Amino acid sequence: MKKKTTIYDIAKELNITAATVSRALNDNPRISAETKKLVLEAATRLNYKQNRVAQALKSGKSKNVGVVLPYINRNFFSSVIRGIEEELNPKGYYVIISQTHEKENKEIDIVQNLLDAQVDGIIISVSRQTNSNKHFNQVLAKNVPLIFFDRKKEIPGTSSVTLDDFNGAYRATKHLLEQGCRKVAHMTIDLSLLIYQNRLGGYKKALAEYGIEFNPEYVIALQSEITAGKDAAKKLMELPEPPDAIFSATDLGALGAIQHLKEVGMNIPEDFCVVGFSNEPFTQFMELPISSVDQNPVLMGKTAAKVFLEQIDSEGVKIEKNVVLDPTLEIRTSSQKK
Amino acid sequence: MKKKTTIYDIAKELNITAATVSRALNDNPRISAETKKLVLEAATRLNYKQNRVAQALKSGKSKNVGVVLPYINRNFFSSVIRGIEEELNPKGYYVIISQTHEKENKEIDIVQNLLDAQVDGIIISVSRQTNSNKHFNQVLAKNVPLIFFDRKKEIPGTSSVTLDDFNGAYRATKHLLEQGCRKVAHMTIDLSLLIYQNRLGGYKKALAEYGIEFNPEYVIALQSEITAGKDAAKKLMELPEPPDAIFSATDLGALGAIQHLKEVGMNIPEDFCVVGFSNEPFTQFMELPISSVDQNPVLMGKTAAKVFLEQIDSEGVKIEKNVVLDPTLEIRTSSQKK
Repeated sequence: MKKKTTIYDIAKELNITAATVSRALNDNPRISAETKKLVLEAATRLNYKQNRVAQALKSGKSKNVGVVLPYINRNFFSSVIRGIEEELNPKGYYVIISQTHEKENKEIDIVQNLLDAQVDGIIISVSRQTNSNKHFNQVLAKNVPLIFFDRKKEIPGTSSVTLDDFNGAYRATKHLLEQGCRKVAHMTIDLSLLIYQNRLGGYKKALAEYGIEFNPEYVIALQSEITAGKDAAKKLMELPEPPDAIFSATDLGALGAIQHLKEVGMNIPEDFCVVGFSNEPFTQFMELPISSVDQNPVLMGKTAAKVFLEQIDSEGVKIEKNVVLDPTLEIRTSSQKK
Repeated sequence: MKKKTTIYDIAKELNITAATVSRALNDNPRISAETKKLVLEAATRLNYKQNRVAQALKSGKSKNVGVVLPYINRNFFSSVIRGIEEELNPKGYYVIISQTHEKENKEIDIVQNLLDAQVDGIIISVSRQTNSNKHFNQVLAKNVPLIFFDRKKEIPGTSSVTLDDFNGAYRATKHLLEQGCRKVAHMTIDLSLLIYQNRLGGYKKALAEYGIEFNPEYVIALQSEITAGKDAAKKLMELPEPPDAIFSATDLGALGAIQHLKEVGMNIPEDFCVVGFSNEPFTQFMELPISSVDQNPVLMGKTAAKVFLEQIDSEGVKIEKNVVLDPTLEIRTSSQKK
């Protein structure tokens, strides 16, 4: 294979410095129109091809957008990615995906790697462990648009697309109360994260509306896993006054709870109602379909992508946009008494 | 913020050309040791930082590995990625993921984009639609290691890690025959893909071993969707001689089939047995857990990553390695008569 033409070959051909060639190719105003013409002619003659990375290096545009998220194997996250791709691919952007596995140090490394790769923007859902804002400030310092989705950090200069978790939880809990349940427990994940705080808040608001006193014993934090849901349900059912319904902040938690409740012979929804959160596909196709709060992930992805495009199109102007999407409660057998 | 030091600043400081600075920083043999020393000293003094992209441009190493696959929202694929990450992250590689949605033109674009981004290797599962090999040949022409997993193309100079689909299908079908089923149908996806050809082959081999004639009416191709599985099961049950078991090449197909069979009042596994393929998590946590062929995806990812590392470590030597992993049959209620 013939060796690739470099700017040094063009420089040699024209007996000028490589720096001049580089400047000419970059349309630097310090270079005369005549020289630029000669350089472009020589570049064409010698079949010089500007490498995309080289172009990215000069222009700072790679046409790549980095999407960073905790896990790709959750329907919620993969659907957000679908929304982002649907919006960005037709505009010529590539979406490159990285997962943090909820680890702060991985998130920091990934963000640095994306900056090094000259991505045009970063759309991110923050890992559970992340405390530092340093890597996000680096993104801002480089003037790379930073858009949070679902899990955000409050950082001036960044945008976000989130779900109204409070309202989703409020509706789910209210629905359980409307079914006649009066002792509604809440399974949560990590109350240091805003989304779970908001889900707890919505749950409390619904209880208050029905004049039901909040019982801290009815709130259990668990890992988003089936076994944790089973264990938590077991614990709840062993309380002196066990609950008659569970609003779980995750679908896997709800599934685990249902498995335990069935094992101990509870009739769902007659004796006990369960609602999950996320509307993962399995909630529909269980033999006992599980009610769940849908987070509109495709719309969330599309919206995040649109916010990115707005920022790219308005260079020089700082945009800070915070969009809050409304969730939908999908009522299925697990909570439908009537 | 202070403007970043460039090679032009160093050149100006030392009164030499930027090309000389660049060559010195790249350890070009044409530059004297003395000049190199001066350049390095000035670079340190002026706080010059070589950009990772610039380094990638020069060295051709980005420490990024591109993983390309049809969909990220299948447990199989996300588990392969986990395996790749577990192997590559500790070695300092970043894994960037792109999905093709089974489209050839998207796959071609993505591969080109990854080459432009100077990835150190590409690990790919070919999209269903892909006919062309041109983009793969481009990867080879650039001496970038190309490793196929699960769905491969037969291209000299590439490596692959696949599953013994034939054997997986053979075991699944044999298991159904061992349960006493004699009219085993097969749901497949796309017989233009090698993996589905092999699954059909394994199915046929098991039938032949039991002296059962192959019945083409018992083979239905469907999209990997629940409704398609339901429809296919309906069609099969309306045959003059309906089957008594289904070996489905996908779990969602198996799930759809089970939903239809239940609707028409069949008892599973007593009257009818079903086995799926992929061991997606939902197969376990259904009320009627579904038997399925596990594809060892984490091991597949780890193995693909190891093959990549081998290739990177043996520059100049062409490695062509084809690893075939053995699947495991997970027997659950949907096919366990005894």
